[in-house]
Amino acid sequence: MQKKIDLNSDLGEGYGAWSMGDDEMMLGIVSSANIACGFHAGDPLTLVRTVRLASARGVVIGAHISYPDRVGFGRRPMALSHEELVADAIYQIGALQGICNAAGTHVAYVKPHGALYNTTAADASQGASVIEAILAIDRRLALMGLAGSAILDQARRAGLDTIAEAFADRAYRPDGQLVSRRERGAVLHDPEQVAARMLRLAMTGEIEALDGTMLRLEADSICVHGDSPGAVEMAARTRQVLLENGVLITPLTEQRA
Amino acid sequence: MQKKIDLNSDLGEGYGAWSMGDDEMMLGIVSSANIACGFHAGDPLTLVRTVRLASARGVVIGAHISYPDRVGFGRRPMALSHEELVADAIYQIGALQGICNAAGTHVAYVKPHGALYNTTAADASQGASVIEAILAIDRRLALMGLAGSAILDQARRAGLDTIAEAFADRAYRPDGQLVSRRERGAVLHDPEQVAARMLRLAMTGEIEALDGTMLRLEADSICVHGDSPGAVEMAARTRQVLLENGVLITPLTEQRA
Amino acid sequence: MQKKIDLNSDLGEGYGAWSMGDDEMMLGIVSSANIACGFHAGDPLTLVRTVRLASARGVVIGAHISYPDRVGFGRRPMALSHEELVADAIYQIGALQGICNAAGTHVAYVKPHGALYNTTAADASQGASVIEAILAIDRRLALMGLAGSAILDQARRAGLDTIAEAFADRAYRPDGQLVSRRERGAVLHDPEQVAARMLRLAMTGEIEALDGTMLRLEADSICVHGDSPGAVEMAARTRQVLLENGVLITPLTEQRA
Amino acid sequence: MQKKIDLNSDLGEGYGAWSMGDDEMMLGIVSSANIACGFHAGDPLTLVRTVRLASARGVVIGAHISYPDRVGFGRRPMALSHEELVADAIYQIGALQGICNAAGTHVAYVKPHGALYNTTAADASQGASVIEAILAIDRRLALMGLAGSAILDQARRAGLDTIAEAFADRAYRPDGQLVSRRERGAVLHDPEQVAARMLRLAMTGEIEALDGTMLRLEADSICVHGDSPGAVEMAARTRQVLLENGVLITPLTEQRA
Repeated sequence: MQKKIDLNSDLGEGYGAWSMGDDEMMLGIVSSANIACGFHAGDPLTLVRTVRLASARGVVIGAHISYPDRVGFGRRPMALSHEELVADAIYQIGALQGICNAAGTHVAYVKPHGALYNTTAADASQGASVIEAILAIDRRLALMGLAGSAILDQARRAGLDTIAEAFADRAYRPDGQLVSRRERGAVLHDPEQVAARMLRLAMTGEIEALDGTMLRLEADSICVHGDSPGAVEMAARTRQVLLENGVLITPLTEQRA
Repeated sequence: MQKKIDLNSDLGEGYGAWSMGDDEMMLGIVSSANIACGFHAGDPLTLVRTVRLASARGVVIGAHISYPDRVGFGRRPMALSHEELVADAIYQIGALQGICNAAGTHVAYVKPHGALYNTTAADASQGASVIEAILAIDRRLALMGLAGSAILDQARRAGLDTIAEAFADRAYRPDGQLVSRRERGAVLHDPEQVAARMLRLAMTGEIEALDGTMLRLEADSICVHGDSPGAVEMAARTRQVLLENGVLITPLTEQRA
Repeated sequence: MQKKIDLNSDLGEGYGAWSMGDDEMMLGIVSSANIACGFHAGDPLTLVRTVRLASARGVVIGAHISYPDRVGFGRRPMALSHEELVADAIYQIGALQGICNAAGTHVAYVKPHGALYNTTAADASQGASVIEAILAIDRRLALMGLAGSAILDQARRAGLDTIAEAFADRAYRPDGQLVSRRERGAVLHDPEQVAARMLRLAMTGEIEALDGTMLRLEADSICVHGDSPGAVEMAARTRQVLLENGVLITPLTEQRA
Repeated sequence: MQKKIDLNSDLGEGYGAWSMGDDEMMLGIVSSANIACGFHAGDPLTLVRTVRLASARGVVIGAHISYPDRVGFGRRPMALSHEELVADAIYQIGALQGICNAAGTHVAYVKPHGALYNTTAADASQGASVIEAILAIDRRLALMGLAGSAILDQARRAGLDTIAEAFADRAYRPDGQLVSRRERGAVLHDPEQVAARMLRLAMTGEIEALDGTMLRLEADSICVHGDSPGAVEMAARTRQVLLENGVLITPLTEQRA
């Protein structure tokens, strides 16, 4: 049977006059776009344009929800109450759904961004807020999270579909967690190495940890970045190597179909 | 045939720790709630709570969209481009739709707020932006605007349902426009006078202008305010007098049913 | 020698169309005003008006600096970097200094607000950021903090003047810390009890903890609130009882003069 | 006597994770930096860093004040009241003064940004608000504005120093006003042409309008841009040509000294 994998990237992260990354280029590479919803990035007009581009390229759209911290780009942990986080998540998902509806497409999944991603991966109470928001607004939305993290189990138990993702340019610890960005070797820079790692992951479910341990990782999707010329090149090379080796790049809905 | 009229009010206008008006009281008075969408007022948690209260009271919900000017409460004209205004409107309507979906209810209409209300009433290009946004996101949403204003014709020509509203506490010019707040006598303060005017309007379609001229005004809805104890009292008295005289207070969808 | 104490309160906490508390009333009660700087509350026009009123009443002005979280009113812990927090503090102090200069007055001290107050009281690294900001912008500014908390020692070692404050309406633990708001009895509601406690504190330096233990607390200032009619009444009664018993209510600079 | 001119550019226009232009490069070209104050761009940490760099390079600092419209980058006209605009201007100038004080430097002038620049150039009432703010906060601050525009006369009559600027990359109308960006030929793209025009302006006070008319323009400063690689190149070439022809590039204070 043909191997299949999704490629996802964070898009729509401009804000007004400011741009971030090369969304048009990335939409030619990925099969899923995590689109900002206005809380860490993404003004309405940027979102409208990004959604239209994604839709025109047949790229599946996810709502990339965040803490309300634009100046910190959603990267700083914030102690929101459960009620606040549920409401913030619903508001953001709804806003992006509105923009998708207006463009004749729809939101297929939800991915927490930045500090919220890290917090929900491990903190069941914040994870529960995001899950409650999805169940309330539309239980057909899948939740995208770190392959192997607790929130994916939590979401499945709540009845949600999940998308487990691996990071193309990040080193892994032997326990399957990401090496912290503060440590040496946490971020990979060689496109060939990254492409080869991702091919192996797609073909065999294996990825080598920083200490040489071989891990098993059940990943539905690979997260690639587009916020620098080098990042775009790495993403493009990863796509190319996957395709050349017969891996189908396709969003999760079609993987399961 | 029994006379029918809608009563509407601006609600959900708190922001975080700040409150504005007495939403619970007003939800016992009105049949339609214009709920803020976060751009002039209304953080997500306030909106969740307001939508739940409105839904529990059977009050119909409208999206009260605004220029992006929280510190100015949406009251200051801003020169947005057509594309910006369309995107801002879609984002706001979508966000409130999301919150309504999560509460098991829905948005039924759109009402521009503050400076956007005044600008769209007269400026066909800004009106066109709001209409384009509604057509794109959901053409079943009605547009609420000032009875007799150009935007209502514009919206009907575009295929939208419209809700024409009169203001309970405002004086009218002989040409059917509102007397500017900067002029003497622009705002009415006597609950009995206001209630009597609104009863006459509901029964006969007539309202007396500031100079004594009798106007004809086709109003589907009466806008009442709740941002001061006196305003709530005036709204309650208006409701009472209408009911005592056999006028049915009901949202537009049921008026037309 | 006559006993002296400062009374302080959080003011300027409106935002645009939203108001918070009765600043005019409180400016007749306190000798020091902690004025918001725009990050948790306080738009520029509100600040201009509050500073003018404070100046006209001879009330000393402090910069009430916060995390950048308006929708959360600065009450939610945020993980800012040292550099971010230093810059945010300088920006806020500078903005309020500008408004004070324009009104012919000046900022005399800095008080962290909300979550930043709690975090800096105990977390030396965040305290160090605030202290570094004050040293950089104007080392004559005093730091106001919780009587007995670590940040006051930290500030004095760095060469800053400090203002130690007690809370009129809060219960104390036997170790001198505040009883958490989540616990029973944390907040006091009886104006007579509060006034008597504060009189004793001003006269003897003693305050009774929740468990009956008698604490010694070296407080230069008493924080009173004005965000409800009951709070204003309590603040006024505290002032009255202090004055009736010969305690001079005066800002710190005059206490030390 | 040696000819002297100031070169100025808009800097500090990043926001959090977003950057705008190459500030370090431009600080090697200009003698004056118009630094954003947080309302259209410029978070506190970006401002701290930009002010430090400018100070280290001996570049004079101006406060680049704006309407409160970050998502619109201050480019959209907004109908602020006089009181609001005065307060907004004071707040922004004060914030940048604080950051300058902390870096051991100071603000020397004020330049309105974007839509506020255009509005104040022609609308005496909005100009009066900016002038009132400067007079209130520090009357030693000069006002930078378009050479030949009404606000410069207005400011001088109010007792302020002024800095008249010409735009390196913009075409002029025969009446001395800028050709609107919406018209053909409004923006110049050839570095050699621009450098030659600015040399002539610095040497003779003459500049050729779009229709070939020769204008006289008393400019103290030339505004160059740094928001694209081409813009930086044009600015660098303009500086080089001025220097090669013996024009001293120096801020206004030193021109007048």
